[in-house]
Amino acid sequence: MPKLAQRMYDMEGTASIIRALFSAMGSPDMISFGGGAPASEGLPVEEVREICSEVLTRERRGVEALQYGSVLGVPDLRQAVADTLLKPKGIDASSDEIIIVNGGLETMNLMCQLYIDPGDVILVESPTFVHCVEIFEMFQAKCVAVECDDKGMVVEDVERKIKELHPKFVYVIPTFQNPTGKTLPEDRRRRLAEQGSEYDVIILEDDPYQELRYSGKALRPIKYYDKTGNTVYANSFSKIFSPGSRLGFCYAGRDMIARLFDAKTATNSHTSNLVQVVCAEYFNRGLFPEHLKKVCDIHRERRDVMMDCLAKYMPEGTKWVYPDGGLFTWVELPGGIDTGALLPEANANKLHYIAGAGFFVEGNGKGSNCMRVSFGNVTPEKIEKGIERLGALIKSKL
Amino acid sequence: MPKLAQRMYDMEGTASIIRALFSAMGSPDMISFGGGAPASEGLPVEEVREICSEVLTRERRGVEALQYGSVLGVPDLRQAVADTLLKPKGIDASSDEIIIVNGGLETMNLMCQLYIDPGDVILVESPTFVHCVEIFEMFQAKCVAVECDDKGMVVEDVERKIKELHPKFVYVIPTFQNPTGKTLPEDRRRRLAEQGSEYDVIILEDDPYQELRYSGKALRPIKYYDKTGNTVYANSFSKIFSPGSRLGFCYAGRDMIARLFDAKTATNSHTSNLVQVVCAEYFNRGLFPEHLKKVCDIHRERRDVMMDCLAKYMPEGTKWVYPDGGLFTWVELPGGIDTGALLPEANANKLHYIAGAGFFVEGNGKGSNCMRVSFGNVTPEKIEKGIERLGALIKSKL
Repeated sequence: MPKLAQRMYDMEGTASIIRALFSAMGSPDMISFGGGAPASEGLPVEEVREICSEVLTRERRGVEALQYGSVLGVPDLRQAVADTLLKPKGIDASSDEIIIVNGGLETMNLMCQLYIDPGDVILVESPTFVHCVEIFEMFQAKCVAVECDDKGMVVEDVERKIKELHPKFVYVIPTFQNPTGKTLPEDRRRRLAEQGSEYDVIILEDDPYQELRYSGKALRPIKYYDKTGNTVYANSFSKIFSPGSRLGFCYAGRDMIARLFDAKTATNSHTSNLVQVVCAEYFNRGLFPEHLKKVCDIHRERRDVMMDCLAKYMPEGTKWVYPDGGLFTWVELPGGIDTGALLPEANANKLHYIAGAGFFVEGNGKGSNCMRVSFGNVTPEKIEKGIERLGALIKSKL
Repeated sequence: MPKLAQRMYDMEGTASIIRALFSAMGSPDMISFGGGAPASEGLPVEEVREICSEVLTRERRGVEALQYGSVLGVPDLRQAVADTLLKPKGIDASSDEIIIVNGGLETMNLMCQLYIDPGDVILVESPTFVHCVEIFEMFQAKCVAVECDDKGMVVEDVERKIKELHPKFVYVIPTFQNPTGKTLPEDRRRRLAEQGSEYDVIILEDDPYQELRYSGKALRPIKYYDKTGNTVYANSFSKIFSPGSRLGFCYAGRDMIARLFDAKTATNSHTSNLVQVVCAEYFNRGLFPEHLKKVCDIHRERRDVMMDCLAKYMPEGTKWVYPDGGLFTWVELPGGIDTGALLPEANANKLHYIAGAGFFVEGNGKGSNCMRVSFGNVTPEKIEKGIERLGALIKSKL
């Protein structure tokens, strides 16, 4: 076979982490805190079936759903994004500043197509979402970690590194961050947007969890504070509608949307019209608010049970994040326990989590005593059983 | 805004053609021979609605359709590809050699991720599908045209250019080619597969039209003659199920599928499960053979009407391809008429076609007296009216 492109070698390390991540999904007898899926019990199965039954006729939206569509997406879904998802956050968007993409991550891929030449720098959180690092590395970007504290990115370090490294992007998940569950406070959000404008850097804001808030006060997106178009807002329908539909959106300035149009046509032409039409109807029929409440109720209970169980079963000296929303908490173990080394034994005990070290682009064993623990798609009963078992395993190693 | 990546400049020329292509789609009072869509009347609207109503329940496939899925695709859809689409062509594929992608074109994007470094050469037909050229140029490949005659690629010229230019891919649409409607004969198919093996080049076989045969004898894919895995078979469900679903597949060796897994996760994780489940059920329920017959009947009539009308209304000296299937014919005008220059006047006459020159990567005005004429999504009545009008317009210029 011909030689692979250089990017495939550059991404190999992270790709191997992603392969492991996917391969551990879905073994049925495993209690898995590993995946990033929301509760299957909260998926709008009945709503989707009803929508399909009603609108997939020749008289209604059947042909639109099955014929080729527009590159930027189905118009009323883009309008729903503007009206239902952005306006309540103080963002006054026009539907022609929105492109519908194939899942939230595709925005990162397309933005790299637009801006990343090999060797370009992207600043990321420490730790950050490893799946996006895989995308950045496929584009041969150099990912550099920004110092983070218990509130997220330290903006003074962002500024220092912008001046020193001239990055193209600052990639940030400000709300209920993946993997830590932390939320960036308002003053830092404002400052990040300003830094994007001052230094002409793109703040790539990835905000898929922000509707899943179970406690505390909602914050404005970084994009709200952006006055120059340097912040690009990426979001997903995975957590508020359905992950398997692979629907996301990007809100950016018109010039950038025009370029995203080009990259999208050269990637896969457009996102599936069938799922776009179904999702548009989900918003048009006003199903979203009630469904979101149901989804938040399910996940709030799981978050609470997770917090209680960590306190009850984990050994003394363990620390974890109390997430006000989202799907994850981040657990730091005492006694120098290596969560990567422990994983095979955990798996043998029918338990799964994601070892922490893979989320740090700086390497050097950072985070090797940490783990990402998801409560999204684990029932309260299994959370209790699983964390009890995990606590016992860890205690046996101390 | 930060400077765009180099690839965006490199693709700009072709991207502007693609933008024009998309912008002309869908004006309702236009008789458009421009797009590449199949007949809306042949879309399986009723079948899809019935499938959704039956399987989107919690007891059946509702959760699978809406939850995260596997990177390579829904297992029974991959099995349907092996059993229903490949086996009858003499290809004995295993489902784990198949990846489901987001429309037929995504395979080309992913294959470029795997193999194309800037400056790598891709051999293409003359003329070739301009949308794929956009993809190749986004990856900064150098597209070089291979000599074509009335049967398609001249394999001696392929061999010459392989030896001279050491391409990574030979990109070929062997059946009812886009834009010409031509079909590559068996001996050349066999020879292309051999050349891929002999010279360790990837033969990227794009075969989305081959099920849409209205006359003549079915031919084996190039992939059938491949003994080394150097031929990669890309196909789409757009013409046999639904273009708006954005479903395609790639059949390749296991090692290549493993790498496509990486590129797919770094593009958009996986293809929409909802549409995959619906399409799998379409095959599982045995709906495909009857539906394909219906779709072929619709398009055969349109092909026949198109052929009759071209003979009836076009000026003497006009040549065109008689396509045994697919959606296109290729029309060559006499008298040095420039189809690009004529297009605004045609549009003013509520007529649309795609001017020929954009399909030639060699440029130099080649094909400027040609046009791609699609009969896929134009009713027989409109074909007659449109070609009569087009013939009159052209005659007025002679």
